[in-house]
Amino acid sequence: MNNLHNLINAIEPIHQEVALQANDHLNQLTKPQGSLGKLEDIARQVAGITGEVMPTFEKKAVIVMAGDHGVCEEGISAFPAAVTPQMVLNFLYGGAAVNVLARHAGADVVCVDMGVNADLEHPNLVSCKVRKGTRNMAKEAALTLEETTQAIVAGSEIVDDLVAKGYRLFATGEMGIGNTTASAAILCALTGLDTSIAVGRGTGIDDATWLHKQSVVNTALDVNGLLGRGAGVSAGASASASASASASASASAEEGSSGDYALEVLSKVGGLEIAGLVGVILGAAKHRCPVIVDGFISSTAALVASRLAPLSASYMLASHLSQEQGHAKVLESVGLAAMLQMDMRLGEGTGAVLVFNLIDAAGKIMKEMATFESAGVSRE
Amino acid sequence: MNNLHNLINAIEPIHQEVALQANDHLNQLTKPQGSLGKLEDIARQVAGITGEVMPTFEKKAVIVMAGDHGVCEEGISAFPAAVTPQMVLNFLYGGAAVNVLARHAGADVVCVDMGVNADLEHPNLVSCKVRKGTRNMAKEAALTLEETTQAIVAGSEIVDDLVAKGYRLFATGEMGIGNTTASAAILCALTGLDTSIAVGRGTGIDDATWLHKQSVVNTALDVNGLLGRGAGVSAGASASASASASASASASAEEGSSGDYALEVLSKVGGLEIAGLVGVILGAAKHRCPVIVDGFISSTAALVASRLAPLSASYMLASHLSQEQGHAKVLESVGLAAMLQMDMRLGEGTGAVLVFNLIDAAGKIMKEMATFESAGVSRE
Repeated sequence: MNNLHNLINAIEPIHQEVALQANDHLNQLTKPQGSLGKLEDIARQVAGITGEVMPTFEKKAVIVMAGDHGVCEEGISAFPAAVTPQMVLNFLYGGAAVNVLARHAGADVVCVDMGVNADLEHPNLVSCKVRKGTRNMAKEAALTLEETTQAIVAGSEIVDDLVAKGYRLFATGEMGIGNTTASAAILCALTGLDTSIAVGRGTGIDDATWLHKQSVVNTALDVNGLLGRGAGVSAGASASASASASASASASAEEGSSGDYALEVLSKVGGLEIAGLVGVILGAAKHRCPVIVDGFISSTAALVASRLAPLSASYMLASHLSQEQGHAKVLESVGLAAMLQMDMRLGEGTGAVLVFNLIDAAGKIMKEMATFESAGVSRE
Repeated sequence: MNNLHNLINAIEPIHQEVALQANDHLNQLTKPQGSLGKLEDIARQVAGITGEVMPTFEKKAVIVMAGDHGVCEEGISAFPAAVTPQMVLNFLYGGAAVNVLARHAGADVVCVDMGVNADLEHPNLVSCKVRKGTRNMAKEAALTLEETTQAIVAGSEIVDDLVAKGYRLFATGEMGIGNTTASAAILCALTGLDTSIAVGRGTGIDDATWLHKQSVVNTALDVNGLLGRGAGVSAGASASASASASASASASAEEGSSGDYALEVLSKVGGLEIAGLVGVILGAAKHRCPVIVDGFISSTAALVASRLAPLSASYMLASHLSQEQGHAKVLESVGLAAMLQMDMRLGEGTGAVLVFNLIDAAGKIMKEMATFESAGVSRE
């Protein structure tokens, strides 16, 4: 737990004054103020994060974390659990969608085994296996607090290594049959959202399986003592709106407990790849590197990270709005706005890697556009 | 007019069977079916357009058309009309946002003077000047039918030239102080939309100017005899919902008249750069080339093109959803869905050129991803 506390305490606010300098420059360029929208937001944010008005990101990586889920026993996915290790090998051989899109973006794929239920070996596989899949959260806690902390710290150490190699820009990705179920449970537990809103179709399940998936998530929340605790913890503003806020919720709303509760939720109904991604996000924030958050599962990791370390949210960029129905709610909870509306629902980091190109574009806007003065264009 | 009819008649349906072949290939790839969303839509669409399952687009161009607007006399813009020629020079010197983003995408900027109110000369400027700006639509018709047709045909001929040079993928862009006003008027006239919805803030006007801009659009519609004619013409499905459909609307709903009415609207309240872009879009469709449509003004040109030649809509890809408030309505009218939500409102083609990268990405998905069989991944 000490390592996790050190990680959280190492995260500092972004350099607001450098973000303002970037903004001043943007307002000199030949365009109406603010008319490049989120490209300008990116330019300001990465300036604030890095402390450089016009940073360059030469080496980029998407960190794809894999793990299996004991809850698959309950029959909640359209694909068999065997697909997790099969897809990890596909990542390692470069044939998955995230490999193709990462190559297109000039980024490297770092593939991490956080907890796949198979023995995997490959020279390019980063092995941080905490255990072979989580326990079935519909029957018991998916992970112990120790396992969860170990996975978070391991995720942050991968960022330590990559930063030492010159990487300064990260994206999150994941693979794990069953992990939309775990993510929906985390979302419900942290925000008090109903399972009918938080639970989606994952890789593509039918109506009957979807209803079953909702009931499995409710069971997991109940078995793990998480029912009815989310809303009171989520935020002061929403606490009053929640008439059902129980005594335990009020008790857990004391200082510091929001992070403790998030850690408890992550261990009881989370996953090892999700915990690993929490570590990646916190690690990126610690090193003052922007981190692009992918779809529903990655965003749930971002939500947990923002509860553990609220300052980490300033280092995150949302990528796309997934088809997975709970995604908009997760982004809203973290305070992030998606840039792409591609109707994607694959995960792996496929939406996040598409945003590398937008970050490069924003950098070139800062460096290459003419100013009103240099181009002789009249201002309003 | 003969040239315009020939252009429209040269547009054929896309190759639906090739789009289906592309779809069959997508369904072999290691991902749940349809999980790459609009990337898969792009792959199917460009296959259908080009007639090749996996087309490659080496040479790409964004065609930026400029024109001035007589209606600027009414004080409807935050910027003076002098900015139009100043920005054209900025495009030619490579300092504008669209230049930066086009270089980033590996695309060329083709800058066209369709009707700038200044004498412009530059070796890279394509001059198709029909006249020095439109007439003030709040007092009379902005253009004659002959001028409008001339501008459309000129736009299509620019595509003819570029296709002869090996370009196969196009994006639309524009510059013209006052052209959000003209576009809003076109939108109202073609769809019956109220000016309070169609008229936006353009480059950034205050509340008083916004109300004034609405009243100028209403005056222009009235002066040009276009008030109350839009809703009945827009589509068969919506005609019954419009109780106010006048006798003239019913009369003009005869076969072929939808195109005639669109041409009438474009000439009375349109602009030369907008007419030129109508020609670019029709020309791209004629040559079986995908054309990426930028923001509000470009999309209004796409709406006119789709009324003149309904088959042309299959060749269009929407890019981003602009901050300009009428944009969502225009896209809906054409039947297009935006991919980017960047809160941009600059025009120039800046949103459209960002989509070149997504088209390249979709092409690589088709060419580089492993299949379930080649990767040994189980299907559901």
